[in-house]
Amino acid sequence: MPFKDKKILIVGLGLIGGSYAQALKRKGFEVGAVTRSQASVDYALEHGLIDRGTTEVTAGFVGRYDLVVFALYPHVFLEWIEKYQQFLKLGALLTDVTGVKSAVVYKVQDMLRDDLEFVGAHPMAGREVYGVQNADCSIFVEANYIVTPTPANSEAAVHEIEELGRVLGFSRICRLSPGKHDEMIGFLSQLTHCIAVGLMTCKDVGHMSAYTGDSFRDLTRIARINDEMWSELFLLNQDELLAQLDLFIGQMGTIRDAVAEGDTEKLRELMRHSTEQRALFDK
Amino acid sequence: MPFKDKKILIVGLGLIGGSYAQALKRKGFEVGAVTRSQASVDYALEHGLIDRGTTEVTAGFVGRYDLVVFALYPHVFLEWIEKYQQFLKLGALLTDVTGVKSAVVYKVQDMLRDDLEFVGAHPMAGREVYGVQNADCSIFVEANYIVTPTPANSEAAVHEIEELGRVLGFSRICRLSPGKHDEMIGFLSQLTHCIAVGLMTCKDVGHMSAYTGDSFRDLTRIARINDEMWSELFLLNQDELLAQLDLFIGQMGTIRDAVAEGDTEKLRELMRHSTEQRALFDK
Repeated sequence: MPFKDKKILIVGLGLIGGSYAQALKRKGFEVGAVTRSQASVDYALEHGLIDRGTTEVTAGFVGRYDLVVFALYPHVFLEWIEKYQQFLKLGALLTDVTGVKSAVVYKVQDMLRDDLEFVGAHPMAGREVYGVQNADCSIFVEANYIVTPTPANSEAAVHEIEELGRVLGFSRICRLSPGKHDEMIGFLSQLTHCIAVGLMTCKDVGHMSAYTGDSFRDLTRIARINDEMWSELFLLNQDELLAQLDLFIGQMGTIRDAVAEGDTEKLRELMRHSTEQRALFDK
Repeated sequence: MPFKDKKILIVGLGLIGGSYAQALKRKGFEVGAVTRSQASVDYALEHGLIDRGTTEVTAGFVGRYDLVVFALYPHVFLEWIEKYQQFLKLGALLTDVTGVKSAVVYKVQDMLRDDLEFVGAHPMAGREVYGVQNADCSIFVEANYIVTPTPANSEAAVHEIEELGRVLGFSRICRLSPGKHDEMIGFLSQLTHCIAVGLMTCKDVGHMSAYTGDSFRDLTRIARINDEMWSELFLLNQDELLAQLDLFIGQMGTIRDAVAEGDTEKLRELMRHSTEQRALFDK
């Protein structure tokens, strides 16, 4: 079946699930949704984000779809597979949007029916707001879409999930192993969220808000954080996150010692290194 | 003499000195400049940023000005006062743009001639580029201008320096003691620069640049840093910066331990606190 003819089911109509639905409907796909709240289904139907929606998982509903996207909290995703995979269409292709990979991908692949295939993916996009009411597929433009295949995957299925990324509008699509993905995300995303939280909570700073410039605001924008989701993601990537935290805390100790010892040369060397490294991120 | 009639001298035509000159000329002030490089004088004259400029400090030149703004590296500023204050006009008012205060303000006031008065100020504005060629007084709009009076200052002089801030276009003008200023800057600005440098240098990250999202870019924008200026500012604020670094590193240790122990509740509590605190900074 050509990709464009696939019927696509979104499981979990939050910000990301809703934005997937919006992008896919605009490209002409038939899109269905299963989600917990009837209000989300109603909203998505009224705003043309989906063709069909329900809060009840039945074979009659989910058995219709060729491609199923899971946009759920990790533990809810795993429970869903355990409980409801029996209802999925024969030979259906599954993917997800989960922000950690090793702790999810292998478990899902291990428990999956033989005729189903799951290819993990991580759309690196988001907003500081939640829910299908804030769905906005423009967040995918200029963002990264990372596919995390394992030896259990077929090249054809991985291709289809990469095609999904292109259809959604991501400008950069790449492949990483689940382990490499988790190291990268532990450093670039989870560590930076830890830093923002640490900076925002290490001191009573409310009275300083009048004096802040752009730097402080930029550094702490992500300090407004969904505690339920991020604490789960942190602990599912515990080993990698700890490794990154230890690297960073160690380096902050080096800077601290250079300040304490009045070591101008060491500070300047660190700053020059930092300036060079940061230049790699400007394109 | 009404403020609008004052002749203003800028000592040091870099990015900030040049932006001061630009703003003041546009408001109709007579502006002179002393700076190290003839090329900077030539540029400022050609672009109408100043009326007169020189690289040589003489009584004939600097003795003309009622208000003198020092936009120099801190140690250069102190040396300048020691060497050349003899040439300044009788009763002239002095101010500066230095990013640390306690280590500068009291020293200058101590060594100053009895007829001169120095009121410290810190324009919290900047760019990641340098030199008078990048002068741009629009950086003052929406920025903070902090005046740091001491018991040695007269209310009239402090008022005049606040008036200077208004003329330059700053939207928020406030007063802090040098000590309170340095604590605030140690936390909001110096600590955040240390964090950006620490994050950028704790790991070889060049290969990760393809995967970065906005969060990482925002957090490390200030990792491109003028090592000569910032190392001097860090060490001139050594005690306050160390205190802020220790608070932050301690809090990162708390987060690390919560991750290591799988303490979901502790992580969620920190994240909720962080979210509340950050809300104080959104206006």
